[in-house]
Parts: sequence; structure tokens; C-alpha cells
Amino acid sequence: MDYRSTGVDLDSAERTKDALKALVDSTRDAHTLSHMGLFGGLYQVPADLREPVLVSSADGVGTKLKVAFMTGRHGTVGQDLVNHCVNDILVQGARPIFFLDYLATGKLDEDVVPRVVEGMALACKANGCALLGGETAQMPDFYQAGEYDLAGFIVGVVEKAALLDGTRIEAGDRLIALPSSGLHTNGYTLARAILFERLGLGVDDALPWDPGTTVADALLAVHRSYLQPLAPLLDDGHIRGLAHITGGGIPGNLPRILPQGLGAAVDRSSWTVPALFQGLQEAGEVHREEMYRVFNMGVGMVVAVAASEAERVLALLEEAGETPWMLGQVTSGSGVVFQG
Amino acid sequence: MDYRSTGVDLDSAERTKDALKALVDSTRDAHTLSHMGLFGGLYQVPADLREPVLVSSADGVGTKLKVAFMTGRHGTVGQDLVNHCVNDILVQGARPIFFLDYLATGKLDEDVVPRVVEGMALACKANGCALLGGETAQMPDFYQAGEYDLAGFIVGVVEKAALLDGTRIEAGDRLIALPSSGLHTNGYTLARAILFERLGLGVDDALPWDPGTTVADALLAVHRSYLQPLAPLLDDGHIRGLAHITGGGIPGNLPRILPQGLGAAVDRSSWTVPALFQGLQEAGEVHREEMYRVFNMGVGMVVAVAASEAERVLALLEEAGETPWMLGQVTSGSGVVFQG
Repeated sequence: MDYRSTGVDLDSAERTKDALKALVDSTRDAHTLSHMGLFGGLYQVPADLREPVLVSSADGVGTKLKVAFMTGRHGTVGQDLVNHCVNDILVQGARPIFFLDYLATGKLDEDVVPRVVEGMALACKANGCALLGGETAQMPDFYQAGEYDLAGFIVGVVEKAALLDGTRIEAGDRLIALPSSGLHTNGYTLARAILFERLGLGVDDALPWDPGTTVADALLAVHRSYLQPLAPLLDDGHIRGLAHITGGGIPGNLPRILPQGLGAAVDRSSWTVPALFQGLQEAGEVHREEMYRVFNMGVGMVVAVAASEAERVLALLEEAGETPWMLGQVTSGSGVVFQG
Repeated sequence: MDYRSTGVDLDSAERTKDALKALVDSTRDAHTLSHMGLFGGLYQVPADLREPVLVSSADGVGTKLKVAFMTGRHGTVGQDLVNHCVNDILVQGARPIFFLDYLATGKLDEDVVPRVVEGMALACKANGCALLGGETAQMPDFYQAGEYDLAGFIVGVVEKAALLDGTRIEAGDRLIALPSSGLHTNGYTLARAILFERLGLGVDDALPWDPGTTVADALLAVHRSYLQPLAPLLDDGHIRGLAHITGGGIPGNLPRILPQGLGAAVDRSSWTVPALFQGLQEAGEVHREEMYRVFNMGVGMVVAVAASEAERVLALLEEAGETPWMLGQVTSGSGVVFQG
């Protein structure tokens, strides 16, 4: 017997590693001390911080991956993953410095893996972080043919004094919303059930409520990064808190950044929920509260600012090319109360 | 329709998170600035380093997880994962500071997940690193009932001047071996095929070549950490290089730390390959070269030291309770040449 006959091909793993080297190298920066192939990736802590705090997060892409499998489009899920991770540490005030991935599959596909990693490398470069390492695991009997799972780990850094930990948030602070770019990476199990099972659509079909968009394009829309528009505002100290709206939606994520004794009033009439969410809600006959708990409903990031700064921050975000809006405000109490 | 009916239970996820809080908190140290529940975990860079370099690694447990599923013993795979990661950054001279995990499953089992995390917390404490965060993903249709995948991500730190990057290794340096504690986390797809398919054994059966040990005990033996015996030697500057023997075995891992133009001579007569590997080789009729490429064969870590230091390092390791031996030496050339 040998390893290969049981489904693990070390030669294929070596070839795949070689194919990834250039991609990984393209994300190196002045602090990256290692090349691919070492046991651990090396990154020198930037010397210009007085009290550097590392901020880290782990995440996956969830069943959005199933859409990649159905369509054979593997170039975006890596971007989803990196951007999701970037947003999760941005909300503590941190800039990403490096990222690592875990890609597990039954049988290594030497064509697919580099396309996934290419997406990660692209997003790493766009967010100024190094793709410092990763693990590609061959696990026969774990994953169905043509499938893989993908997880990401990010580390960022922030000056301790600039940490966003919610403590500066007060009742009366304004909440500004930044739009999501689609479902991001949450709610895909429900969305897929509605589109593929209940409506019986295929990935190449048009959305019934949006004939110009295919199911595939709608579901694979890349989870965007909020680093670029928010970084200058973080530097200026305008921002008192940030909430990334992921699994759990607005009611599950906004309270995570609020100090004890504070809640949020969110004005539902302040924005038009994008057609994709409305279409899913109607087609799936999903209760409105369930929709807001599962999906981001068009709100990708919530920015808390002092009331006196709100207009100025809105204007700065618009100048940065964003389409922000006044979503609501911080209140005494707890949890999220929807109005309108 | 709702999320739960499609297989994703957010309430169960919340309850599981609550159950993990005490475990995660038990691993906090003075540098851990966050509690569970924030978007990112916070860790202050130790201030006592002049030029701190972060060393990071991502890894999985591979199909050793299948043995956990077969036996219902979920308490050790988390230890395997943490220790594997600790070793992977130790070989660059780094001490672990924090760890994050990714646990993905079809349907969340509220009994199993805390047992997995308990293993991680235990190993984190033993290795002096904080369990800083993680992601528990519910992915229906991805994983078979009762199964999960598990990935880990570690960050450690080392003074730049103390980085182990192999450049100090010279021809004539001695290679000292430290024993593995079993298969560690490599070769399980082949080992399972031999034991469960070819030999038709069950997890509770005794090993044919070792009637005192069950298949389950042999396969679930915890991948050990080498931090404790090696840390003092790293501090003293005795060590020129370290190779963690994982997938690819001695020939796949030892050359990774050797400078261009250097190889290694490994004396096969210097140790007795443990009965487990011998039994697998005979029962599976596996070629000897394949065995050495897939399994660690009893060698978990290789330590490169100057010839003049070798006896002293051996003695220090013995004093630390280890059973090290002289495995071979660094040569001119390339790759690993087995002798004996």
C-alpha cells in the first residue's frame, strides 16, 4: 500500500505549492521576513508604534462556497474571506498586517487551488497585508468531490491608545450606515434554499425580480472591504465605534460594540432594502425579523460618531466615494429597536 | 421559511459560545486585552523585545479527526492542533503568544464542540498562549453527520536577532532527535486504511503487535509539544536549527531548514522505530521509503547543534526528562541520505 492509493498525493501537493509561490510573494512588504516554505511565516512588528496591540480574527466563507462549486467560479471566495477578516479587525481600529489561510479538500485540484489563492492574494494586496502562510490539507472522505472548505486568519495592529473598544460611545451618538455589496458571506444556506429549492432556479438563470442579474452574479458578489474609506477617519479620531454586520445581522452585531446600558434605535425608513433581500424575503415567505437577523439587509458597516461630528463624517465618506446614510442613533437601554 | 429549517441554528450557536467563555477566559494572560465576543481578539505586543518578529502558522488535524468521530473521544484533537502549531513556530525560535481556531460542522453539536475547545484551551495553557478567538461555522451539506473539520492558527514572537532561519547551520553540525509521541497528526489516511480496511480492526481492538494497546489509544496519542524541553536551549543560543517532522517525514522536513549546498546524513541504526510504525509497515506492505516519507517513524523533532556542543545539548535534554539521541549530521550536498 502507499499514500497515493489511499487518496493523498504528496507530489500533487508539492506542485501546487510551487504554483502558489509567485502569488504569495506578490503580497510581500518590507516587514515580511520569510518566503513560502518555512514552517512559520515571519513578520516584523512595525517599529513606529509606541504600544502596539495585535488584533486577530478567524473566519470562513460559509456555504457561499457551494455557489463557487456550482458555477466553477473560484476566483472570488478568497476575496470574500480576506475582506471579511479585514473588516472584523478594522472595527477595533486595526490595519491588517498579515493573513493566513486553511484550505481543506478531499482530492487536491491543481487547477482550482491556485484560483482560490489568487483571490486571496488580490484582496491581500488591495488591503495592504501580506499573505504570510497557509495550509492546504488533503482529506479524502471528508469533502465531497469538487468541494473544499476555506478558513482565514488575519492579524492587524493598532496603537493601544487608538483601540476602538466601544468605551467612547455615548447615548445620542449618531449611527451612519455604509452599504453592503450584497449578501457578503452570511445567510447563504437560507438564500440557496430559497433560490435553488423553492424557486428551482439554476445559477445561470436571471433573478425573477431583476432580469439583468443572474443568480450566480448576485450570490457571488464580493464581500467588500471597508478599510479604504474608513482608514482616514480612524486616523482623525472621528470614529467612536464600528460594527461589521455579519451573521446575526444588525440586531446581532450592533449591540456587540455598545457599552452596558446603551442600545440603538435604527430607522428602517432611512434606506431602501436592496431588491435581492426583498426578493428573497417574498419568495421564501421569510418573516421580516428573521430576514434582519440572518442577512445584512443592505447595511454592511455601521459607524458610531458624536452627534456633532455626524454631518462632517457623512460628508467625508461621500468625498471618499461612499454612499453613506444616517441610520439611527445610540440610546439608553439595550439591544436594537427598529423604527419606521 | 427560516434559517433554522434550513439547518442553521443561531440560538444553538449562542448557547455554545456561552459554554466556551470560561474555557477561553482560562487561557488569558497579562497581554490579553479582549474577552470573547469582540470582532477581533486583542493582544498587546510584549514590550521587552527590541525588534519583535511575529511568527505565525496555520494547520489542521487531518483525518486523525476521523478517529475522534469513530471513538467519540473529542478531547485530544484540540491538543494535537495547538501542539502542532506550537512546534511549527518553535522551529523558528518563537514562543507562542496566541492561538485561534476554526471549527466547521454540518450541525452544531452542543456537547462535542466544548470538548474540542477544552482540548485546545488545555494545550494553550500548557504552552503559555492565549486562546484569543475563533470561528464556529455551521455548514449544512458540507460535513457528514457527527463530523467536523478543525483548523488552528498560531502567532508567536521572537527577538529578531534570535530568529532561527537555518543560516547558522554548517556542514559537520550534529543532528539530535527527540522522540515523537506516536503518529502525531500525519499519515492518518494511510494508517486508517491499513488498520480499519486491510486488517479489519475496530477502534477498541488491541493492536496485533501490541496486545496492551487499543487501536483508539494508539491513533489518538496526543501530538506532543517540544516547547518545554527546547525553550531553555533556545535562550542559551545552543540551537542552530530545528525541524518539526510532519507530513513528508524526515526527508520532507529536515531539508527545509538547511542552507543551500547542505544536506543531512541520518543514521537509521541510531534508533529503534516504534512498534506502531513497524506494525503498519508490515501489515500494509508499505515500502520502507514510503513509510519514511509519510510518517515520522519515531522522530518528532530534529535539533541541529555545533559538533562541539552536541554532547552538552544531549545532556541538557536528558536533564529535562527527554530521551534524545544522536541522529546524524549535516553534510555538504543536498537532501537526506539515510545510512544504516
